[in-house]
Amino acid sequence: MTRAFNFSAGPATLPESVLRQAQAEMLEWNGVGASIVEISHRSADFMQVAAQAEADLRTLVGIPDDYAVLFLSGGATTQQALLPLNLAAPGQRVDYVVSGHWGKTAARQARPYVDVNIAADSEAGGFRDIPAPAQWRLSADAAYVHITANETIHGVEFRDAPDVGTVPLVADFSSSIASEPIDVTRYGVIYAGAQKNLGPVGITVVIIRRDLLERAGQPRADIFDYRLHAARDSMLNTPPTWNWYLLGLTVKWMLAQGGTAEFARRNAAKAALVYAAIDGSGGFYRNQVAPAVRSRMNIPFFLPSAELDARFVADAKAAGLLALKGHKAVGGIRASLYNAMPLQGAQALVSFMHDFQQRNG
Amino acid sequence: MTRAFNFSAGPATLPESVLRQAQAEMLEWNGVGASIVEISHRSADFMQVAAQAEADLRTLVGIPDDYAVLFLSGGATTQQALLPLNLAAPGQRVDYVVSGHWGKTAARQARPYVDVNIAADSEAGGFRDIPAPAQWRLSADAAYVHITANETIHGVEFRDAPDVGTVPLVADFSSSIASEPIDVTRYGVIYAGAQKNLGPVGITVVIIRRDLLERAGQPRADIFDYRLHAARDSMLNTPPTWNWYLLGLTVKWMLAQGGTAEFARRNAAKAALVYAAIDGSGGFYRNQVAPAVRSRMNIPFFLPSAELDARFVADAKAAGLLALKGHKAVGGIRASLYNAMPLQGAQALVSFMHDFQQRNG
Repeated sequence: MTRAFNFSAGPATLPESVLRQAQAEMLEWNGVGASIVEISHRSADFMQVAAQAEADLRTLVGIPDDYAVLFLSGGATTQQALLPLNLAAPGQRVDYVVSGHWGKTAARQARPYVDVNIAADSEAGGFRDIPAPAQWRLSADAAYVHITANETIHGVEFRDAPDVGTVPLVADFSSSIASEPIDVTRYGVIYAGAQKNLGPVGITVVIIRRDLLERAGQPRADIFDYRLHAARDSMLNTPPTWNWYLLGLTVKWMLAQGGTAEFARRNAAKAALVYAAIDGSGGFYRNQVAPAVRSRMNIPFFLPSAELDARFVADAKAAGLLALKGHKAVGGIRASLYNAMPLQGAQALVSFMHDFQQRNG
Repeated sequence: MTRAFNFSAGPATLPESVLRQAQAEMLEWNGVGASIVEISHRSADFMQVAAQAEADLRTLVGIPDDYAVLFLSGGATTQQALLPLNLAAPGQRVDYVVSGHWGKTAARQARPYVDVNIAADSEAGGFRDIPAPAQWRLSADAAYVHITANETIHGVEFRDAPDVGTVPLVADFSSSIASEPIDVTRYGVIYAGAQKNLGPVGITVVIIRRDLLERAGQPRADIFDYRLHAARDSMLNTPPTWNWYLLGLTVKWMLAQGGTAEFARRNAAKAALVYAAIDGSGGFYRNQVAPAVRSRMNIPFFLPSAELDARFVADAKAAGLLALKGHKAVGGIRASLYNAMPLQGAQALVSFMHDFQQRNG
C-alpha cells in the first residue's frame, strides 16, 4: 500500500487517519452490529453522528446560532438551482459576480427562475482577476448577490467578503470553506460541496441565515425547500449517511489539527512555496492570475508547450504526484492544495518542478 | 467484531463480502496511490468503475439499449420532483395510484408542477390492499401513470406491472428493484434509491426509455434535466463517486450469486417463512395486508399490544436481530428482507418469534 500525494481538484485527498478510521469501522461501527452505511438515518446512533458533525462544523467555521446548517445531496450545482427557488420571487432580480467557470455555472442554473443580472464578469480577461467591487453594477432590488469565493478551475479567490450593503451575499465556498477563518455574518448563505476541504464527495453543506428561510421563494416541491430541510434537521428524506459520517470525521480531524487558524497558516505556506517556484522559474512555469487574487487552494500553471504540460503530468505521476492535469477548460497544470494536503506534498511538488525544469528547461 | 442480522428498511444491510472489499480498498484502490473516494470522477480509473457498474446493472435488471440509466444523487424523493419537470408540460395531467406512504409522497412532490389526478387510493382501507386496476380512474391525456412497486412502510407490493395502455408507466422501485426478474419494457421510467437492494445510501438509479428524454418538460435548471444527465453519462456535476463504486460492488455480488432469478427464489423463501410464522401464530402476530399483495421485501406486523411490540424489538436486538421497529407512521414491527439478507436471517427471526411467543403469549 503506497499513498501518493494527490493534487486532485475534487474529489480530493483526505486525511489518512480519517480513512483509517473509516476502514476500521467499515464492517461494524461502534459496537452496533452493523456498518454505519447500513443503519437507519433515523436511528439514535446515526442521529448522534449527524448532530456531532453539525456541532463540530459550527465550531470549526464559527457558525452563529442564527444560521441553520443543512447537509444535502446533489452537489453545489443543485444548490445553485435551489438558491433562486428559495430566496427569490419568480422573475425577481438577482445579481451575479462571475469570476470564473463556477460563477458562470451558478448564473446558468438560476436563469430559468429569476432575472439574472451579471453585475460583473471577468471572462473577457480570461478570468485572471476579480472585477473591482467599485465597478460592480449591483441592483438595488436584488434578492441576493452571488459570488464564488474560490474558482477551482481558474484559480482566483476573494481574499475578503465584498461589501454589498443590505442585500444578502450568497457565496459558493466549495473549494475554500474551512481553509482560513471567515466572518460568517458577512454572508446570507454559504454553500459548499464537501469533496474538497470538508471530506468526501456526495454531500453538500448549506449555511443559511435563518431569516432567509422565511422568504416565500417560488413554487417548488417539498424536497427543494430549504425551510423544510431545516425543520427536519436535513432528514426530510434519507440523507447520504456515510458521506455525512465521513464529513464528521474530517471536521473532527481539522479541529484536532488546530482549526481554521492553523489551516490558514499551512495553506498560505503551501501556496507560497508553489507560487514562488512558478515565479522563480524564469518564465518556464507561468501563472497568469493577478497576484492579489491568486487562489491558495487551486494553482493553475502552464509550461512552455502543451507537450511539456503532458510530460510534466506523466512524469509527476510516476514520481508519486497525482492528478496534476489542468481542467480541460483551461489546460496546463493544476495543483490543488486543500487542507488535507500536507506541507510535504507542496514541498515534493516544488522539488519535482525544479528537477523537471532542469531536465526539460 | 460481530455482525448481527440487520432488518433495517434502509439504509439496509449489505453483503459482508462487499463491505470487506470496500474496507480493503479504503486507503488505496487498485494500485492508484489513493482511495477511490479521493480520485476525480473524470479520471479514466473512475470512469471505468462507473461504466462497469452500469453494464452490470443492465445485465442484472435486464435493461434494453433503448433505456438510459442515470446515477443521480438526491434520493427517490428528488426524482419524484424531477419526474413531472422532465416528463410533463406545466400543469399537464398526470395520474398517480397511491398504495401507501411513498405513493402519497410522490404525488405531493409533483403537485407544484402538474395537475395530479389520484387515479386510485387505498388509504381509506389503511393501505392494506392495492386498488384493483379495473377501478383506476386513468386520464386519457396523462403525461404518465405513477405507481409505487413496493411500499416500504405499508408492506404492499405490485406482483406485476399493471396495464395502463400507451401512457408511460413510471414506477418507484426503491425497495424492490433487482429482487426478482421484471420486464423493463413494461415501464417508461423505473427509479430506485440504492439503499435497499442496490447497495449504499446516497445514490439513486433512474432507468428511462430514451424517447421520454426528448419530451420538452418544463422550465428547469440544467441540473434538473434528465436529458443533460444522460448526455453526460451522469457526470453533469460531481456524482457521489464512492456510493456509485459501492453500488457497483453490490451489483457484481448479485450477479455472482445468480442474478434476479436466484434472488426471486431466496426472497420468496424468506418471506414465506416469516408470513408462515405470522399466520401460524394463532393471532399473536398479525399482518393485515391482503395476501395477494403482501410485500416480499418489507413485512410489517403487530403483537397484541404496543408494550409487547416494544419488548419484541428490545429482546430481538439483544438476540442479534436489529432494527425491527416499525415505521412511526404505522407502529408495530417491520422486518425488511432485502437481497443481502440471508435465509439464515429470516430463519433466526422466525425462531425468535416462536420463542418470544412462548415466553409472552
